[in-house]
Amino acid sequence: MDAAIAEHVGPLITHDGTTVPAARLVYATYGKLNRARDNAILFPTRFGATHRENEFLIGPGKALDPGRWCVIVPNLFGNGLSSSPSNTPAPFDGPRFPSVTIADAVRVQHQLVSEVLGISRLALVVGWSMGAQQAYEWAARYPDRVSRLAVICGAARTAVHNAVFLESLRAAIRADAAWAGGEYRTPPLGGLRAVGRIYAGWAYSQDWYREGLHLGMGDFDTLESYLAGYWDRLFEQRDANNLMSMTWTWIHHDISANERHRGDLRSALRAIDADTLLMPARTDLYFRTADNLAEQPLIRRCMLEEIPTIWGHMCASGQSPVDTRFIDSALRGLLGR
Amino acid sequence: MDAAIAEHVGPLITHDGTTVPAARLVYATYGKLNRARDNAILFPTRFGATHRENEFLIGPGKALDPGRWCVIVPNLFGNGLSSSPSNTPAPFDGPRFPSVTIADAVRVQHQLVSEVLGISRLALVVGWSMGAQQAYEWAARYPDRVSRLAVICGAARTAVHNAVFLESLRAAIRADAAWAGGEYRTPPLGGLRAVGRIYAGWAYSQDWYREGLHLGMGDFDTLESYLAGYWDRLFEQRDANNLMSMTWTWIHHDISANERHRGDLRSALRAIDADTLLMPARTDLYFRTADNLAEQPLIRRCMLEEIPTIWGHMCASGQSPVDTRFIDSALRGLLGR
Repeated sequence: MDAAIAEHVGPLITHDGTTVPAARLVYATYGKLNRARDNAILFPTRFGATHRENEFLIGPGKALDPGRWCVIVPNLFGNGLSSSPSNTPAPFDGPRFPSVTIADAVRVQHQLVSEVLGISRLALVVGWSMGAQQAYEWAARYPDRVSRLAVICGAARTAVHNAVFLESLRAAIRADAAWAGGEYRTPPLGGLRAVGRIYAGWAYSQDWYREGLHLGMGDFDTLESYLAGYWDRLFEQRDANNLMSMTWTWIHHDISANERHRGDLRSALRAIDADTLLMPARTDLYFRTADNLAEQPLIRRCMLEEIPTIWGHMCASGQSPVDTRFIDSALRGLLGR
Repeated sequence: MDAAIAEHVGPLITHDGTTVPAARLVYATYGKLNRARDNAILFPTRFGATHRENEFLIGPGKALDPGRWCVIVPNLFGNGLSSSPSNTPAPFDGPRFPSVTIADAVRVQHQLVSEVLGISRLALVVGWSMGAQQAYEWAARYPDRVSRLAVICGAARTAVHNAVFLESLRAAIRADAAWAGGEYRTPPLGGLRAVGRIYAGWAYSQDWYREGLHLGMGDFDTLESYLAGYWDRLFEQRDANNLMSMTWTWIHHDISANERHRGDLRSALRAIDADTLLMPARTDLYFRTADNLAEQPLIRRCMLEEIPTIWGHMCASGQSPVDTRFIDSALRGLLGR
C-alpha cells in the first residue's frame, strides 16, 4: 500500500493544562485531495496499532478507495509513532508523558485537518475501537465538519465494565516489580505477558474459542502454545508506558466531558449532525450492541448494523475476511448516501 | 447456622500417581442422616470459598432444609481448609502440593460418603461453579449413587475460553517477582491485586456494571474505590499457591478425562443417570448457556432453567436475593421429583 507519511508538529495542550511543546502527530495519507478538498476521509488508529493496521480496509475497489478518496490516518498519541511515552524527550519521557484524552488528540487532529490541510469538511470519519472513540469525538465536537460518521465497535463514552477490563491490564503491569513506576530499564516482561493473556479473553468471543479458531492464528495445537506464541509474543514487544498511556486515554473517553456538555451524554449525542452508522459486533465483550442501541435514538440520523460474527471485538481487525467484507460493504453504503 | 465440622483423613492419590499420605478433607454437615440413610445431599464448595459460603442456601424453610435433609458440604482441596498448598507440611507444602483434578477430589469425597458415612445413594448433588464441576463429576463417575444433579453455572468440561480467563489469573501472579515460583515469604500483593481486578471483569456482567450495582457492594462512589475496596482487599488475603492450585484444578476439569470415556464427552454425559437440572445464568461470561444447551440432549433426563439475571456468574453467590430465591425454588422443584 502506497502511503505518504508526514508529521504535524506543534504544541499538545492536554485537558489538565500540560503543554508538550513540539508534539508529533504522525499521519499517513492514501490518495489525493481533490481541488474542492471535499473527498477527505479521516480514519484514526486503534489501541496499540499504527496506520499500517488500518490498511486492510483501504485500497482500489474497496469502500475506502484511494482513487476516489483521500484517506488520512492519524496515529493516536501514545501508540509509539506519534508522540508517546516511549519516544518523547525529557521532561515528558516515559512515565512523565502527560495523560492525554481522546478529545486532546482530536483537537490536534482538527488543527492538522483544517489549518494544515485546509479541509473544511470531512466526507467521513471512521474508526474501530479506540479509532471509533476518536471518530465519535470528532462528530460531537465538530458537527459542521463531519458529513458521515462510522463507529465500528466503539462507544460515545467508555462503559464502566470496559474500564474494569482496562484497569485489570494496568494492575497486571503494576504487579511486575520491573515496571518500577514506569522507570524500567528492561521491559516488565511478566506484566506484559499477563496483559496479553488478559486481552486474549476479551478480544475474541467465547464462541470463537469454542470453534477452535484460536488454533488457526498460527501453528498452534494447544491453548498454551497459542497463548505463548501469539499473545505473549505480541505484548512482550509493547512498551509498558505506552500501554499505560493508551489505557488511561481509553478509560477516560467521554464525548460529553467538556464545558459544552458538562457530562450530559444525551446532549453530546444530540449535537452530532453526521449521517451516522453504528456497527457493533454481536459477540463483542466490551463495546456492546446494548450501549450503541442506547445511543442511537439520540443521534439525528443514525443507522445501526450489527456485525453478525463470532470474532468478537476482533472482527474488525482484518483477520476475518467475511467480517471485513461486511464492514467494507456497510461503509460503501454510508458513502453512497 | 449450626454446622457439624469434621474431617476425613486419608491418602489423596492424584491423577499422576502422587500420594499425599494423610490428606484432610474437611466437611460440614447440616441436619441429620435418617435411618434409611437416604436423605443426604452433597453440596461441594466453589473456587476460593469454604462451606461457610454455601450456607445461604441451607436453612429451615429452604429447599436444602436441614430438618428434612442431611446436607454435607465437602471443602475442595486447595481451598485453604481441606489439604492445600497453604496448610500441608513438607514435602507437599506450597508449590510442591500436587496438582489435583476435580476427579481426584470427588474420589475422596466418594470414600467419605460411602465408606465413612455409609450412604449408598445421594438424594442430590448440587454445586455452583467449581462446586458444579464436582457435582457433574459425581453424576458421571458414580451414576448409581446420584439420584438428582443440579449444576448451577457449571459445565461438564471447562470451556477453552474459560481456560483463557484462568490462564490470565495465573499470568498475573507469575508477573509479580515476589511470587518466586511459589516460594514467597511475603505475599505477592501486586499479583494478587491484579488477579482481583481481572476477576472483577468476569464475575459480574456488563449490564450489572452498567446499572451501577458495583457501587452497592460497599460504601463506594467510584469505580476505583470499588476495585480497591472490594477486589484488592478480597484477593490480598488469598494465598497465591492456593489460587494456582485451584485454577489448575478448574482448567483441567473434564468428566470424560478417564479410562472409561477417554475424552469422549458425549459418552460421559450419556453415563449420567440422575434427574438433572442445568441452571446457567443468562449473563454469565464464562459458564455459558450455550455450553449447557450442547450438553442437555446427551443427558437422559435433563431440564435446563436459565437464571434470568444481570448478576452474571455471581448470581448464585448469595449476593442477589432474587436469584437466590429463583435457585432455591428450582432446587425445591428438583427435590420434589
